[in-house]
Amino acid sequence: MNKDNFTMLCDFYELTMANGYFKNGFYKRTTYFDVFFRNVPDNGGFAIAAGLDQIIEYIKELHFSAEDIEFLRSKKIFDEEFLEYLKDFRFTGDIYAVPEGTPVFPHEPVLTVKAPAIEAQLIETYILLAINHQSLIATKANRIVRAANGRTVLEFGSRRAQGADGAVIGARAAYIGGCAGTACTLTDFKYGVPAGGTMAHSWVQMFDTEYDAFRTYCEIYPDNAVLLVDTYNTLKSGVPNAIKAFKEVLVPKGITNFGIRLDSGDISYLSKKARKMLDEAGLQCCKIVASNSLDEYLIRDLMMQEAKIDTFGVGERLITAKSAPVFGGVYKLAAVEDEQGNIIPKIKISENTAKITNPHYKKLYRFYDNESGKALADELCVYDETIDSTKPHTIFDPDAIWKTKTLTNYTARELHVTVFKNGELVYKQPSLYEIRIYCAEQLETLWDEVKRFENPHTYYVDLSKKLWDIKNALLEKSKDGKDLK
Amino acid sequence: MNKDNFTMLCDFYELTMANGYFKNGFYKRTTYFDVFFRNVPDNGGFAIAAGLDQIIEYIKELHFSAEDIEFLRSKKIFDEEFLEYLKDFRFTGDIYAVPEGTPVFPHEPVLTVKAPAIEAQLIETYILLAINHQSLIATKANRIVRAANGRTVLEFGSRRAQGADGAVIGARAAYIGGCAGTACTLTDFKYGVPAGGTMAHSWVQMFDTEYDAFRTYCEIYPDNAVLLVDTYNTLKSGVPNAIKAFKEVLVPKGITNFGIRLDSGDISYLSKKARKMLDEAGLQCCKIVASNSLDEYLIRDLMMQEAKIDTFGVGERLITAKSAPVFGGVYKLAAVEDEQGNIIPKIKISENTAKITNPHYKKLYRFYDNESGKALADELCVYDETIDSTKPHTIFDPDAIWKTKTLTNYTARELHVTVFKNGELVYKQPSLYEIRIYCAEQLETLWDEVKRFENPHTYYVDLSKKLWDIKNALLEKSKDGKDLK
Repeated sequence: MNKDNFTMLCDFYELTMANGYFKNGFYKRTTYFDVFFRNVPDNGGFAIAAGLDQIIEYIKELHFSAEDIEFLRSKKIFDEEFLEYLKDFRFTGDIYAVPEGTPVFPHEPVLTVKAPAIEAQLIETYILLAINHQSLIATKANRIVRAANGRTVLEFGSRRAQGADGAVIGARAAYIGGCAGTACTLTDFKYGVPAGGTMAHSWVQMFDTEYDAFRTYCEIYPDNAVLLVDTYNTLKSGVPNAIKAFKEVLVPKGITNFGIRLDSGDISYLSKKARKMLDEAGLQCCKIVASNSLDEYLIRDLMMQEAKIDTFGVGERLITAKSAPVFGGVYKLAAVEDEQGNIIPKIKISENTAKITNPHYKKLYRFYDNESGKALADELCVYDETIDSTKPHTIFDPDAIWKTKTLTNYTARELHVTVFKNGELVYKQPSLYEIRIYCAEQLETLWDEVKRFENPHTYYVDLSKKLWDIKNALLEKSKDGKDLK
Repeated sequence: MNKDNFTMLCDFYELTMANGYFKNGFYKRTTYFDVFFRNVPDNGGFAIAAGLDQIIEYIKELHFSAEDIEFLRSKKIFDEEFLEYLKDFRFTGDIYAVPEGTPVFPHEPVLTVKAPAIEAQLIETYILLAINHQSLIATKANRIVRAANGRTVLEFGSRRAQGADGAVIGARAAYIGGCAGTACTLTDFKYGVPAGGTMAHSWVQMFDTEYDAFRTYCEIYPDNAVLLVDTYNTLKSGVPNAIKAFKEVLVPKGITNFGIRLDSGDISYLSKKARKMLDEAGLQCCKIVASNSLDEYLIRDLMMQEAKIDTFGVGERLITAKSAPVFGGVYKLAAVEDEQGNIIPKIKISENTAKITNPHYKKLYRFYDNESGKALADELCVYDETIDSTKPHTIFDPDAIWKTKTLTNYTARELHVTVFKNGELVYKQPSLYEIRIYCAEQLETLWDEVKRFENPHTYYVDLSKKLWDIKNALLEKSKDGKDLK
């Protein structure tokens, strides 16, 4: 496979700023940028971080080709020395991030970049794109998987995805979020996500009769025949023909692994009727797959109505995260080093208090209760703070500081891993399967209240006292309006 | 640039069906498949067809590599002869399609494939993906451009796109739909869509004061300084500092091409206040750019409130088509050739009448009124019908056949062009710029009633009498439930 180079997949302003930093000497300054988000899509209680794998590949390939530089020169706004500098441009900084599959919450850094200003700025667009897309789909897929409550969920959405990547790596993210497989062959080839599928309506239409189509399929694929029963009339012809084909071709061979797929009509009603017909024919082993514009809301309703469905095939509403198709990750300056190497925290003020950033180079801790194993709260600290789990630790709500809680008998885990150090990849990437398992394990540490679809409990993301003081000092300083550093 | 090969970007069932067709001899059968959609996103009156360029590149590259075949072999369900056959697999059929940028309506074939069954089946997923994604974004972008009513709209959404393709070719589709440019550098490099951009909040934060940041930018980029004025306080510091920088650096040089960008807060209020401040400072030439979660609905409101905005930068709501992020194109079998080469029409029945397909190998005509130049109706005909514009032509509503209309003084244009003939590309692709111009011209032929956002007029897509008769005969035939061909 040829590796894509997405160096030029950047907002043009990254380049105008880079050229500016180059000219005024800022390009040597070490800067700290955080990636975080403010709201969970679909008003959920948490998101699942994903996209780090794409970022690693991107950073490894990061460089400007001669054609890229020629193109930039043609714009006639960049300095010749800057274009020269781009020839040898590589990433030389550090990247810290939560591992893929980690449940994350608003306002905490999913990823932190420490790098010279130009490098940190240039990689903004792609880093956001990768995290926003992969986290969006992993989070959405997990909602759907939770709604299915143990039944299998398969990703079926390639044809409605927003571009080829949307399909191929969208299915990757869906697997992290808990889907058991995909219809996308290329995702299996590239990432090992099990691909499956049997027939479309056109298969049925190609034959003289529906029964011929079913029988032929069972003969060719006796080990996994899932027959699509809604081409003409689900209950009057589809299910009876399927039963006939199963009984004539598969049952005599002792095969029990087969199914039917419902792709239109009222899935609840049809699945119950079909189940009854199959059972009456002695085909209790026959599975029922449903696949018609499903999402977590429809699946929840189908489960409530006790629809007889074993497997949900979920397409467009998963692969585009239709009900909330944007993950709003942002990339904000948190600190700058001065010439002596002192880290100067930076803040972005806003009239909208929710948009005020958490300044400084930070660490992210998660506290787990030793008894229940459940996650209690997260805390953002200044980079040089350390939490000693052997001692009680008092946390407080940053928006209501009189609300405090003292933790005892807990474990504090630092969530960030070091991914790149001085431009070198130092992180051993887990396999996709390992990421999926890790994600499922981490979700077990969340209380059900956080996982609820409607009005989930707001998980605590607190600031350490030291960080809170620094933030408030910066806010105070900005108030006088004179010094707007 | 390395060309991607998306042959394996197919639903797995395309391969199981292909193997089945290979085994039972159907693979030699010539089949006809139509791509069409049933609903316009956002309840709009029309869509803009796009994605043909991606399909052409895909078909040209279509082949299975040795690794692809090895991977398929590992699945242990495909016949060895079929895998052998895939080694030399190429597309040998015909593709007909409406040119990119054509306004299209529900139920009409945007693209028709005529090819041996396996080939036609294998290309389904990617063809749908390309048309669905590109048409989705072109259609959405055009809605936003129409709302802006002549003011400039720029595409700013890369960081929130659903994958790299979503960003890069999403911006391409947005350009077809009428956006004047993009923030995405790679889209400019690859497709020539003008990329632009100036600064992020981080630029402002990097300097000791906001004024320093603005002044430095004006000095480096005197010809196109657009200053982001909302890092601290838009009206108290951002706009005054921008005015100061413009007056000190640019005005003395006689430069008049500069602007400010509003990216948060109440854009209507802030733009009016900022306009007043700029005008009072004698900077009537200063443009105002706005860019905060905009879409056609917000822009329409801002226009109604007479917000003082010259340019709209539209991000996540365009690049993901947030309000309706799925374009529901489908790929349905329309006909099959028998061994004598007779074309046998095929229909897909559904209890939902809107889901019943239009059978047969078809042509698509659009009628234009010679006087007004406006499009009057479209008509689907059987492939061997021809419409003679010199004679009156009577059209009728296929759902209410007593409603007829006789056209005189009209021009009938066949909308499909031949793209591939016997596997050879015979279509001369227009440039992206030409597609954009063609799209704008074609939109001029639509009545305003069709372009309305709320309850648009339903444009007529009729069937010829011959096609209507064939469809009804197939429906009658299916009613008895005996022969379900």
